[in-house]
Amino acid sequence: MIIPICLFAQPEQPVEEWTGKTILLIGGHPDDDHQSHATLAMLKDHGNEVYILTMTTGNVGTKDPRISRYQLAQIRRQEEVDALKEIGLREENYINLGYDDGRLEFADREEAVGKLVYYIRKLKPDVLFAFDPGYNYQVWQKSDHRAAGYLAADAVRAAEWRLLYEGQIIQDGLTAHVIPEFMFYGGNIPDKNTMVNITDYVEKRVAAGLKYVSQWSSGWRDYRGPNLADYPPEDREAMEKRIRNRIFVENGISYERFRYHKGPPDTMGHAPRD
Amino acid sequence: MIIPICLFAQPEQPVEEWTGKTILLIGGHPDDDHQSHATLAMLKDHGNEVYILTMTTGNVGTKDPRISRYQLAQIRRQEEVDALKEIGLREENYINLGYDDGRLEFADREEAVGKLVYYIRKLKPDVLFAFDPGYNYQVWQKSDHRAAGYLAADAVRAAEWRLLYEGQIIQDGLTAHVIPEFMFYGGNIPDKNTMVNITDYVEKRVAAGLKYVSQWSSGWRDYRGPNLADYPPEDREAMEKRIRNRIFVENGISYERFRYHKGPPDTMGHAPRD
Amino acid sequence: MIIPICLFAQPEQPVEEWTGKTILLIGGHPDDDHQSHATLAMLKDHGNEVYILTMTTGNVGTKDPRISRYQLAQIRRQEEVDALKEIGLREENYINLGYDDGRLEFADREEAVGKLVYYIRKLKPDVLFAFDPGYNYQVWQKSDHRAAGYLAADAVRAAEWRLLYEGQIIQDGLTAHVIPEFMFYGGNIPDKNTMVNITDYVEKRVAAGLKYVSQWSSGWRDYRGPNLADYPPEDREAMEKRIRNRIFVENGISYERFRYHKGPPDTMGHAPRD
Amino acid sequence: MIIPICLFAQPEQPVEEWTGKTILLIGGHPDDDHQSHATLAMLKDHGNEVYILTMTTGNVGTKDPRISRYQLAQIRRQEEVDALKEIGLREENYINLGYDDGRLEFADREEAVGKLVYYIRKLKPDVLFAFDPGYNYQVWQKSDHRAAGYLAADAVRAAEWRLLYEGQIIQDGLTAHVIPEFMFYGGNIPDKNTMVNITDYVEKRVAAGLKYVSQWSSGWRDYRGPNLADYPPEDREAMEKRIRNRIFVENGISYERFRYHKGPPDTMGHAPRD
Amino acid sequence: MIIPICLFAQPEQPVEEWTGKTILLIGGHPDDDHQSHATLAMLKDHGNEVYILTMTTGNVGTKDPRISRYQLAQIRRQEEVDALKEIGLREENYINLGYDDGRLEFADREEAVGKLVYYIRKLKPDVLFAFDPGYNYQVWQKSDHRAAGYLAADAVRAAEWRLLYEGQIIQDGLTAHVIPEFMFYGGNIPDKNTMVNITDYVEKRVAAGLKYVSQWSSGWRDYRGPNLADYPPEDREAMEKRIRNRIFVENGISYERFRYHKGPPDTMGHAPRD
Amino acid sequence: MIIPICLFAQPEQPVEEWTGKTILLIGGHPDDDHQSHATLAMLKDHGNEVYILTMTTGNVGTKDPRISRYQLAQIRRQEEVDALKEIGLREENYINLGYDDGRLEFADREEAVGKLVYYIRKLKPDVLFAFDPGYNYQVWQKSDHRAAGYLAADAVRAAEWRLLYEGQIIQDGLTAHVIPEFMFYGGNIPDKNTMVNITDYVEKRVAAGLKYVSQWSSGWRDYRGPNLADYPPEDREAMEKRIRNRIFVENGISYERFRYHKGPPDTMGHAPRD
Repeated sequence: MIIPICLFAQPEQPVEEWTGKTILLIGGHPDDDHQSHATLAMLKDHGNEVYILTMTTGNVGTKDPRISRYQLAQIRRQEEVDALKEIGLREENYINLGYDDGRLEFADREEAVGKLVYYIRKLKPDVLFAFDPGYNYQVWQKSDHRAAGYLAADAVRAAEWRLLYEGQIIQDGLTAHVIPEFMFYGGNIPDKNTMVNITDYVEKRVAAGLKYVSQWSSGWRDYRGPNLADYPPEDREAMEKRIRNRIFVENGISYERFRYHKGPPDTMGHAPRD
Repeated sequence: MIIPICLFAQPEQPVEEWTGKTILLIGGHPDDDHQSHATLAMLKDHGNEVYILTMTTGNVGTKDPRISRYQLAQIRRQEEVDALKEIGLREENYINLGYDDGRLEFADREEAVGKLVYYIRKLKPDVLFAFDPGYNYQVWQKSDHRAAGYLAADAVRAAEWRLLYEGQIIQDGLTAHVIPEFMFYGGNIPDKNTMVNITDYVEKRVAAGLKYVSQWSSGWRDYRGPNLADYPPEDREAMEKRIRNRIFVENGISYERFRYHKGPPDTMGHAPRD
Repeated sequence: MIIPICLFAQPEQPVEEWTGKTILLIGGHPDDDHQSHATLAMLKDHGNEVYILTMTTGNVGTKDPRISRYQLAQIRRQEEVDALKEIGLREENYINLGYDDGRLEFADREEAVGKLVYYIRKLKPDVLFAFDPGYNYQVWQKSDHRAAGYLAADAVRAAEWRLLYEGQIIQDGLTAHVIPEFMFYGGNIPDKNTMVNITDYVEKRVAAGLKYVSQWSSGWRDYRGPNLADYPPEDREAMEKRIRNRIFVENGISYERFRYHKGPPDTMGHAPRD
Repeated sequence: MIIPICLFAQPEQPVEEWTGKTILLIGGHPDDDHQSHATLAMLKDHGNEVYILTMTTGNVGTKDPRISRYQLAQIRRQEEVDALKEIGLREENYINLGYDDGRLEFADREEAVGKLVYYIRKLKPDVLFAFDPGYNYQVWQKSDHRAAGYLAADAVRAAEWRLLYEGQIIQDGLTAHVIPEFMFYGGNIPDKNTMVNITDYVEKRVAAGLKYVSQWSSGWRDYRGPNLADYPPEDREAMEKRIRNRIFVENGISYERFRYHKGPPDTMGHAPRD
Repeated sequence: MIIPICLFAQPEQPVEEWTGKTILLIGGHPDDDHQSHATLAMLKDHGNEVYILTMTTGNVGTKDPRISRYQLAQIRRQEEVDALKEIGLREENYINLGYDDGRLEFADREEAVGKLVYYIRKLKPDVLFAFDPGYNYQVWQKSDHRAAGYLAADAVRAAEWRLLYEGQIIQDGLTAHVIPEFMFYGGNIPDKNTMVNITDYVEKRVAAGLKYVSQWSSGWRDYRGPNLADYPPEDREAMEKRIRNRIFVENGISYERFRYHKGPPDTMGHAPRD
Repeated sequence: MIIPICLFAQPEQPVEEWTGKTILLIGGHPDDDHQSHATLAMLKDHGNEVYILTMTTGNVGTKDPRISRYQLAQIRRQEEVDALKEIGLREENYINLGYDDGRLEFADREEAVGKLVYYIRKLKPDVLFAFDPGYNYQVWQKSDHRAAGYLAADAVRAAEWRLLYEGQIIQDGLTAHVIPEFMFYGGNIPDKNTMVNITDYVEKRVAAGLKYVSQWSSGWRDYRGPNLADYPPEDREAMEKRIRNRIFVENGISYERFRYHKGPPDTMGHAPRD
């Protein structure tokens, strides 16, 4: 018996028409939000409030032998803030939980989930963008992404019950919150059911991507500061090419693709079951 | 290369004919056994001994602001005992490990597995009913269910070796035990290979389901005690409809569907590999 | 939409022609390397350096009531060393991390990953053989294998960054190392993309397999020492049959099958994604 | 060789003359601050800024069978806020970390220390009031108090290094902070070196103490709300007697006694050593 | 200022006159109860019910190279049961939690405390015998003893609150229990305040001690079974001498010495404090 | 009742006459060995083999805002190696376990103890120098020192049993080892029972101490490299004064003071008890 894998409902209201919503994206590293940057730029433009929460500081991923964890965390924060500016978001809308890069799986899960629950209850998002923890089966992700995906899924569940992490409610005045809609990124292509037309926002995504100099230019091996002008001339072209190549294009239209889910958090990861 | 996914062996002896077996079901919350209730009622009727082990107390899932964790644990226990009565099981056959709802993944795994190993060695089941941990790939489950599925799988393995959790053997007089057959519930439909004809037990399943007032009636938001008569009149109909809708029917016959596995515990989760 | 699952690149240079490479195999128990023994024997013959790292001592898996964990660890080590001798490897090339069998999932992950990172940085393998942690989705594996697969995947990532486990670099004089190629064993057949012609090494694999007396002969229940001659006469035949049956044969050619990956460790587990 | 145990330096400037300082008290439960209430009331009066940080919600300690953890946390918070009002502190100066009562020792230490470090770096106290972790030897304390004392000591050390919990610095804009002076409460009498004349603040301490109805009146077994007037008439007298009896009086002067330490955090717990 | 250290209250009713009480002793290894054996024999004789709970199996402490952990656990259990028989206790009154010797400090504390709470609530002791966790300061104990002392202290506190480990109450029908009296053994001599005249029970203690052949005879290095007759003739005399030498004698009267505490569990470890 | 606290046996053979022994010192940070440097220099001179094992890299303790953890670990290693050279020890005799400074208490205890056990079994010391974990009562130490003291004590116990960390024995060819003598440093003065006349080695200790530039000179705030000549001229004098002031002098003789223990590891921390 072979059955079609992709039988998802699309969002009733196209993403391109969303407005007035609060959006929260949870990622593992500064730049994990990049694959949704055009969509986020559009949503911001269309009157939605957008928050980016990154779990780790990204303080490990450099091949430049002179850069320390401390410096890299500073660099990656600045790059992230600069990138967000390109898509219309202010630094106030950026939250970083401060975990060490590459070690999120070793963190205490109960505490990490609690921190996400705190922001879900505080910001009360209508839509969550997160790494796809899986559809029917658990998606393969590298370590921090695997952790970020599952911690987000667990936090969504916990956030809705006032009897979990109730210290936040009793002591800090928050209230339980149910997130009704989800946009999962970073998953397998066949699991994606929603294509967002980002043609008008490609340039903003490219501009944002160009800020990640320490990751995607030769700054990865030889960091010369945040300014692309200080790097070899070919760097900019290579970086831009790399950024554009990651964008899916079909019939001349550019898309960011997601797995969309609407409904109880419990069912975010699977087709109907008995 | 596309290969058929579902190439499972059916039970040699149909489930409908099983008798004299000891059955253990491991679930995460009180009511996780419900999707197997008709099969269990039939098995009990046919002279099998049936035990239900629930890992958490279910003490979190209410939207009624007046209910505490303590009360909800009491309510959910009584509902479970009442439901089991409907399918012919006595309270003595119900075991609850007392973990907090929504926090099973944070529990110490070695201890949690040890507790399951203890009951496997004590009850010596011929068949284990458990959440499907996955076939070939790891099934997506929400947090407690994911934990319950994997803890059960790990406990099955550990239970068979006298050199693991040997304190139970040396100090408590238990012996190692191998479970030969498995019925996995809660997994993906394409992974299911066994359909149990429960037509004659649908009403028992419905009667059992009607006991979960705090979960599936308006008692979820406004709890008025265990008696459905104390709730708005439309509640009973809605609840019953919900319960019946979850039963799979084909050609007028009602089924509960499972992934059945017979063989070494090591291979419970996959097709033959090199 | 149904898409073909297996669209992998084969190794540019056939495995049969590899030479001068350093190979590291990471497994969970002594004998997990067996399903790659013919390939490893060939690689050793062809001038590659081969190391076997086993995470646990295999000290639990016996049904012989007289054998202790301590003795079983000794027996399984000797069997492993003897098996490796048959495929041309010396005891010096065997590393055992000493974890208890059946309890690898309970080990501290940060420490376990650190130990693997240590050996990756010290041996600097060109190719890693490991349990398949999954392709697109997380492969179902029994507990120790699941742990061994994921710990290896996480160690590969960590090993490449000088800012992780940097004590090894600063205090022990090691350097960061990127493994460029991977051969995953133990995964699902549809995920395998590489078949190694082992026809000329089948007998070496069989000879090696015959050393695992405590696992695959009646020694499993009644251990009589490492010498097959001390066991019932039918044991040898049964054992050999079992060993040969596990070898995949097509058109008279014997193969060991793997999922091969070349490229950044981050992408070892999935097809291209947006 | 017998040597005098108590050879401590007194504060150069008497506590009674302190002004313009920022004070932070760290306790385990709501009411752990009570034994310092008169001193804190005086300090507040004298122009110091006073913050109270309680690690747990105190949600377990009741013998009233009708009270839930959730309700008790609410009750204990309100009592604490009301008590603080009596000694001149506003609710804004009260911080509760939300840990479960009786389970602080089971919390992840790295995370718990991190939360304390956060508040130390944010509030930048000149003086820390904390449970005495010990002088020369580790003081015996019951579980939560033991944890609260040591977590505070560890947080003091960590707070001063910018390379620890640096996410707080890089992401949240905090800076490292060294606390120069300490007042340890709850320790052994012979270890105390500082007596604060609280004669003028005894009545404020008593008024504050009378707020802990759920702890120190018959409300402990039969809770009737926060108002003492709703309790049996003898309750008030008994409660007041109990509160007054805990105050040390010598020659007609009332004192709160502390172990005072000034100097590097590293030496907070011992006399000079080689 | 030097103050007397030992100012304890003696038991109002001398231990020698206790009757009708339920006694629970918590120890780390089989034989930790030995230093209280004469007192326990007397208590049993005087109509008290006595239970012995040992946390570990004692499966590590042998210098005999032929003994495995499994065998040693069996040997130590039998020795313990035999010793208890000598002081009048039946095997039914012996509980062993099955933890590995030498690894109690690595166990999950929340689970270990929970197991002790379970037995405290089930047996409802009037008096607890335990390793002294300390008086005013934390007593130095070697690892397992340190853990056993503190876990017992924490369990005593937790057992009295129905809102802790409430699964035991709701699911298993237990009720909260307060232990009113304590006899701490294994602490520092100056902290002891209670001497029990055991002159009439010395021989029972000796007879019990002679059962620990694997610990205190040459069986420690060369185990020859539980029967002292199978050991070198000088063993018995040496063993008996060793056992008698550990008994404190003053003016011809033999004593077992304890630190006695009566009162709230919270104050079990210290003199009155402010 | 006041009893003398210090009733210890001195070493039978004065430390000044020791020769042919293997010495292992376990410390928390690079420089924790300094308070024993003169004694170690003498022991090396007298024909003993001396090893220094440091648990953390010391990578946190700087007030220089330009120094990273990575750099500080490098600096502190070089300083330590240079200091050891001054007292006659080669780099080969220096072992650093690579733990992060300030986070040793958060490390997995079972793994940390295992690493110490490994070196105890490999080096087979006759004498262990370690932080004093306590005499009768647990000594107060700041966090890493507390951890280092107790981890060492636990490792000493574990090292002697072949059934603990037996992977080291079976897989790595080590054997169990009992350390017979101990010299505890860093404890309370009244607990010290042994004074080593170091008059002839004071200058070596001073020379060694002068290497810790990043700790004890203005390099702490403004690091200018390992060469004291590159620092303000007053630095050297201040540093030397500080180093000399920490040496205990009586009647013109300089001493390093220790708590010496000979006997079973189990009793290392207390006077005889019943």
